[in-house]
Amino acid sequence: MDSHTKPPITLHPIGFVQSAYTEPISSDILRSQESRIVLDPDLTPGLDGLENGQAIWILFHFHRNQDFALHQHPRGDRSRPKQGVFSLRSPKRPNRIGLTQVELIRIEGNILYVRNLDAIDGSPVLDIKPV
Amino acid sequence: MDSHTKPPITLHPIGFVQSAYTEPISSDILRSQESRIVLDPDLTPGLDGLENGQAIWILFHFHRNQDFALHQHPRGDRSRPKQGVFSLRSPKRPNRIGLTQVELIRIEGNILYVRNLDAIDGSPVLDIKPV
Repeated sequence: MDSHTKPPITLHPIGFVQSAYTEPISSDILRSQESRIVLDPDLTPGLDGLENGQAIWILFHFHRNQDFALHQHPRGDRSRPKQGVFSLRSPKRPNRIGLTQVELIRIEGNILYVRNLDAIDGSPVLDIKPV
Repeated sequence: MDSHTKPPITLHPIGFVQSAYTEPISSDILRSQESRIVLDPDLTPGLDGLENGQAIWILFHFHRNQDFALHQHPRGDRSRPKQGVFSLRSPKRPNRIGLTQVELIRIEGNILYVRNLDAIDGSPVLDIKPV
């Protein structure tokens, strides 16, 4: 890095994903079923203003991916030429942050029920933002 | 937190923003001018496959915001009722991650020239993804 070099950034999960899938699997399968986000109860008031049916961004951590390559086959398809990781949505990336637009089905207390989330069970959630 | 409690997550900036604005200012003003992202040169090959004019997501850290409130006035407008932070795009939020869709104007080596980025000079960049 250059003269801008700064210390690492420490984040604290705001909650965790609950899903039927506990192991990495295709994102299409993950997206097909309902997931839950269990928010830190202390943060529940931060959900005020979100509405059922609303589209929201979920930022989460691909906690099971340890390594990344700068060049990868799109969607792991070896028949397609490799590209740079920043031109792909691969989970094998620097900082391993996942970004997915989901539909908020409903909120019950500190639990968000969502559709279209491609995060496995136990994934740390870093942020929730309106689309 | 519940039984899912896990250790903090440590991230390392992949680069830094260069902008004419070094202090927090309205996002509309920040977005109006061109910015640069200076990528860690070791990561430059990860840009292969990105094309000029393409829309990309920039994930960055609001490094100058230290605190957050669970309820905030939208855009700091005190004439509007407070809402939960997760229903707002406020930079004053847990984990302070910014998410902005920008236009990639061009790439020169490890430098991305972009339009519409609302990050001030020196903001750590956490990820770049295609839209």
